[in-house]
Amino acid sequence: MSAPGVARTKVRRHPERGQYDRATIDAILDEALICHVGFVVGGQPYVIPTIHARAGDHVYVHGSAASRMLRTLGAGVPACLTATLLDGLVLARSGFSHSMNYRSVVVLGLATEVTDGAEKLAALEAIVEHVVPGRWAEARLPNEVEMRQTSVLRMPLDEASAKIRTGPPKDAEEDLDLGVWAGVIPLALVPGTPVADPQLRDGIALPEYARSYRIQNRRRTRR
Amino acid sequence: MSAPGVARTKVRRHPERGQYDRATIDAILDEALICHVGFVVGGQPYVIPTIHARAGDHVYVHGSAASRMLRTLGAGVPACLTATLLDGLVLARSGFSHSMNYRSVVVLGLATEVTDGAEKLAALEAIVEHVVPGRWAEARLPNEVEMRQTSVLRMPLDEASAKIRTGPPKDAEEDLDLGVWAGVIPLALVPGTPVADPQLRDGIALPEYARSYRIQNRRRTRR
Repeated sequence: MSAPGVARTKVRRHPERGQYDRATIDAILDEALICHVGFVVGGQPYVIPTIHARAGDHVYVHGSAASRMLRTLGAGVPACLTATLLDGLVLARSGFSHSMNYRSVVVLGLATEVTDGAEKLAALEAIVEHVVPGRWAEARLPNEVEMRQTSVLRMPLDEASAKIRTGPPKDAEEDLDLGVWAGVIPLALVPGTPVADPQLRDGIALPEYARSYRIQNRRRTRR
Repeated sequence: MSAPGVARTKVRRHPERGQYDRATIDAILDEALICHVGFVVGGQPYVIPTIHARAGDHVYVHGSAASRMLRTLGAGVPACLTATLLDGLVLARSGFSHSMNYRSVVVLGLATEVTDGAEKLAALEAIVEHVVPGRWAEARLPNEVEMRQTSVLRMPLDEASAKIRTGPPKDAEEDLDLGVWAGVIPLALVPGTPVADPQLRDGIALPEYARSYRIQNRRRTRR
């Protein structure tokens, strides 16, 4: 369990679902709007949902996920960042073979605080652009007080793996004759019609990046 | 950090978002199709996505989430089970105030293996019914071999909290005059048209629970 490198991220259950190439890993991290970050305090694991962004060979998280971790342990802490996309419900003929179609990434490593001002600002830009491309150029930039109130953590992508299930149910041969419907109910996270802030000033139009917001492939130009 | 009871699950960042009543916690656990389970091996946290189900005062997970944990540590292990529902992207006028609308639950406690056969079968039924209500009665029941291959873990709901953000952006007063659109892009996980297994026998109709599948409120009759 404590072997270095890829050994810790090797997919053990359903090894046929494991993938280790960076293109696959990056695509999942880039599509997922949020991740779940795990860290340990006094032997107790904590798992916190948070917004992330990949930029190059690192993944960044900010704010609440960082706060308890940083307060407690300072510099670098062992962390696990997991991003999961749900693609469908797999209805098999046997209860045992029920599953889900999904794409997930697990990143293991040390989370360290970003202290360099320029890298921190770039990470915050990446996080906002990760969620709504085009937004950073319009929003008011953080001021000094806000920068101090925000903590940003960085994890390298050296130790990461993807796990993917696609396709129809995989029932045992002898179950195929059962009189039970089998197949997949696809799932997708879908944006609705934008709702303007009740305090929105008159005369401000809904921007195109919000009107035509897409979750999939929203970051084609990403580094 | 090591204080017992509600202290560990108290929401510290944005305490106004914290909720501790079981009705709120149960509703989030019941709506979320999957959760992320965190556990620790040799000081390293691992966070694994998995299907769960609440039944009464416990939440159950099965399969892969359990396997590494169980192999490593046996009986009861400190775990954290987190379920998150994404409800919207919050576009504020300042980069700093960007957020998401979400509902999440964090459950802390010892995860223990379910060894009683009847409880284990009931947990597997709850897990399948959690995802697709009505499915368990149709699918082939697990046989002895499958039951041995499946591990089920149980966590009590004694130490749980919910965290919820709703509503429009909360920009600072002095930002309200900026010429920047602000509001919320709602998000929902939406089922698509069911896709039959290519190996499906002729003459088996798509069942009503799959044709009219709903994610929200799919478990009105839940204990």
